[in-house]
Amino acid sequence: MELWFTEKHTEDVHFSIKVDKQIYSGKSDFQRIDVFETKEFGRVLTIDGFIMLTEKDEFIYHDMIVHVPMATNPNIKNVLVIGAGDGGTVRELTRYETIEKIDMVEIDKLVVDVCKEYLPQTACKFDDSRVNLYFEDGIKFVKATENQYDLIIVDSTDPIGPGEGLFTRDFYRDCFKALKEDGILVNQHESPYYDYNANAMKRAHSRIKELFPIAKVYQAFIPTYASGHWLFGYASKKYDASEDLNEKAWNDLGLKTRYYNTELHKASFVLPNYVKELLKNINE
Amino acid sequence: MELWFTEKHTEDVHFSIKVDKQIYSGKSDFQRIDVFETKEFGRVLTIDGFIMLTEKDEFIYHDMIVHVPMATNPNIKNVLVIGAGDGGTVRELTRYETIEKIDMVEIDKLVVDVCKEYLPQTACKFDDSRVNLYFEDGIKFVKATENQYDLIIVDSTDPIGPGEGLFTRDFYRDCFKALKEDGILVNQHESPYYDYNANAMKRAHSRIKELFPIAKVYQAFIPTYASGHWLFGYASKKYDASEDLNEKAWNDLGLKTRYYNTELHKASFVLPNYVKELLKNINE
Repeated sequence: MELWFTEKHTEDVHFSIKVDKQIYSGKSDFQRIDVFETKEFGRVLTIDGFIMLTEKDEFIYHDMIVHVPMATNPNIKNVLVIGAGDGGTVRELTRYETIEKIDMVEIDKLVVDVCKEYLPQTACKFDDSRVNLYFEDGIKFVKATENQYDLIIVDSTDPIGPGEGLFTRDFYRDCFKALKEDGILVNQHESPYYDYNANAMKRAHSRIKELFPIAKVYQAFIPTYASGHWLFGYASKKYDASEDLNEKAWNDLGLKTRYYNTELHKASFVLPNYVKELLKNINE
Repeated sequence: MELWFTEKHTEDVHFSIKVDKQIYSGKSDFQRIDVFETKEFGRVLTIDGFIMLTEKDEFIYHDMIVHVPMATNPNIKNVLVIGAGDGGTVRELTRYETIEKIDMVEIDKLVVDVCKEYLPQTACKFDDSRVNLYFEDGIKFVKATENQYDLIIVDSTDPIGPGEGLFTRDFYRDCFKALKEDGILVNQHESPYYDYNANAMKRAHSRIKELFPIAKVYQAFIPTYASGHWLFGYASKKYDASEDLNEKAWNDLGLKTRYYNTELHKASFVLPNYVKELLKNINE
């Protein structure tokens, strides 16, 4: 017998992974959650049929969503994380002794419970004393907040289902308000390659650009996400991460990383022409 | 009825594309060749079950295999291309008026014939007067050549089947000899992500590094190749493409490209830590 998990990158493009066994399957009020054991990727977390992470390459995503803003402003002390129930983002953030508070708002408690049980590789730092876990709607949480955070990381699912509201103009406006005057907003930004993802990316970027004086896009090679070419949105009231990087300060920290380095940080903001073109021609 | 083409990235990882129809299937003395019509990627050429190109993203591969060396040394006049039967590499090379001669050595005439018939998007410049087509073994061709070329591009299949000899020490030694004193060698270099590809990449890099004073690896996002993270080997007797890039000269040419730009050229040489690590620990 063979067991395969298949993600539809599009209706016409399928990515399939051989599964040793399904070790969890459940349904919360919000979504379906599965964990698979696989030979090639180790454990794989999927939500509503989409790969959220694999043990083999989650380091790429988490390196890039955390270290890029942290290397840009080494004085980040208060961080808000939205989504990120698998714990990988919090794991990377807790490596910075300079961070004083990490508020994490995950709408779905079941994701955190499942990851604590089955994905200790990422869900390993929720008990750090600086971490405050809120099982609430991130949209409402941000709306009620003003001038509090140095960094907001939106580590969401795709813009369907519970993740949808995290790609709206209102939400980005509330993030702007919740950030201090030198605040940074980073969010996962889909892929430029398949039309569906590219359209989500264009919408998100145009909305963020209306609000923040600095709005950029950077990229990473993430083999288990559709197309392998994944984007992150970077926005700030003050720091341009593609230029204002504090290389020496970050390297002096001595953090070991398997993907990120400060040269790659700068290089990740250099986009192929077709992606620049997509970001330019924005008609909503 | 549904028709799907599946490429095995590994035994446990399958990438499948819905096919409208198979428009060619044949077998030469060397390999099996297929062309499919698809909605998502346009026409797709496969050899022995591996995707060689799709109309949707071939521009990425061909931009990066041609414009990186050409922007490094704008005085390249004599070029040798090995493999590349689909014509995409020759198409990009013929855009440079400064190039005087393009010798292309493809072992399998059937690939060229099939591409002329079914892939006019790439197989469109074989009749340029500077192009000389040789249907021969590239290994023997290079062995018989000395001090002739400014640039050799090895645009090969994977290191199994007819492509195997193009990843050997002897072959690289013959390329070194066939190049002029400021010559450049570029070759497709597999992916760092799956073990099978990564091992091929490590072997190729270590062999090239023994011979050439300058040996680097650069990368591109190629969604339809395994993992989407594809590498190219760059070697030269004189020019370091990661530093010696002649930005102004290249931009003055006014060539329109959908992937390549001179900023991205430099950024493509900046590798993630895990890839640098792979290139460092080479034990054959």
